[in-house]
Amino acid sequence: MILLEFSMSPLDKGESVGEYVSRSLKIIDESGVDYRLNPMGTVLEGDWDEVFNVVKKCYQEMSKDCNRISTNIKVDYRKGKKGRLEGKIKSVEERLHKKLKT
Amino acid sequence: MILLEFSMSPLDKGESVGEYVSRSLKIIDESGVDYRLNPMGTVLEGDWDEVFNVVKKCYQEMSKDCNRISTNIKVDYRKGKKGRLEGKIKSVEERLHKKLKT
Amino acid sequence: MILLEFSMSPLDKGESVGEYVSRSLKIIDESGVDYRLNPMGTVLEGDWDEVFNVVKKCYQEMSKDCNRISTNIKVDYRKGKKGRLEGKIKSVEERLHKKLKT
Amino acid sequence: MILLEFSMSPLDKGESVGEYVSRSLKIIDESGVDYRLNPMGTVLEGDWDEVFNVVKKCYQEMSKDCNRISTNIKVDYRKGKKGRLEGKIKSVEERLHKKLKT
Repeated sequence: MILLEFSMSPLDKGESVGEYVSRSLKIIDESGVDYRLNPMGTVLEGDWDEVFNVVKKCYQEMSKDCNRISTNIKVDYRKGKKGRLEGKIKSVEERLHKKLKT
Repeated sequence: MILLEFSMSPLDKGESVGEYVSRSLKIIDESGVDYRLNPMGTVLEGDWDEVFNVVKKCYQEMSKDCNRISTNIKVDYRKGKKGRLEGKIKSVEERLHKKLKT
Repeated sequence: MILLEFSMSPLDKGESVGEYVSRSLKIIDESGVDYRLNPMGTVLEGDWDEVFNVVKKCYQEMSKDCNRISTNIKVDYRKGKKGRLEGKIKSVEERLHKKLKT
Repeated sequence: MILLEFSMSPLDKGESVGEYVSRSLKIIDESGVDYRLNPMGTVLEGDWDEVFNVVKKCYQEMSKDCNRISTNIKVDYRKGKKGRLEGKIKSVEERLHKKLKT
């Protein structure tokens, strides 16, 4: 299973790009893929084709009325691991709490 | 003010790197800089030197016992905007809810 | 047309990952897609499906014997622009030379 | 030693950002730090402070007249290795040529 974080912004629409980001979020939300939003991007969990299809749909939508688009994608594949949208944070926080106690 | 997301991993310590990530998180937590953890990285808010100093400290700690380290940093500067650790998500979610209603 | 830069590394194979990178490069080279290698990644030029198919093939090959893989992808879409593998650098260098002369 | 690749673009200046990129390149060129330009960014080689100072100077220059700036930084630290601006590509290409021959 894959965790994929991405952010996608038009370069030709001025400094406020919230309208375009929310269109992407609508596509993500309706895709059925599990996701978490953070201040710098959206993290999806699924198999390769599933998550990249969501990114492609966002690109297709944005390219309808944007002439230049910048996209960043970070992928973390780990064999046989599911539920990492929640699991990775919990695991690291548990370790942190142990460190802070000692 | 700047939002900075970063992730930092050793390449020479096998597939489980949680121990190293939690050491970084301890440094972040003790820095006093406002931050949010997500499944693919940590987002800091502050001015340039403040947030990059935190990243550097994490690097200094990790390079003590790791021979190869891969780091990704994404910075979003927006003039005069504070409180974006919370604000960016809220703003996008509000737009999304309007879209989903209509 | 799209410029896509990516890098893909196993996390569970130690600090020397050249063997895995060269396998990816073989896939890229045989794909027929135009590309340039740089010290931090490979830049491909083509349409969305074309360049993402190459990245997927590299992932499929690497996941055969790697348990954890980290991938970074950066995409720059610009409507109607071709030949940017060469063109972007030339254009910036010409501007630089003008600045340095004056 | 560190390889650092970065790209830095204003979001509020329209789709043509070559003027801003060439200003950064001037700063990089005059810094004395060894670098290579590629179609998606610039790769610097040096120690941590040296290369991050260059990135900071580019940010300071760009933030003078840009309200929103997006920056991506990728860092590859490898203990005791120098000359990787040239060395990494050569090493991978040599492996590739062996593969293609056999």
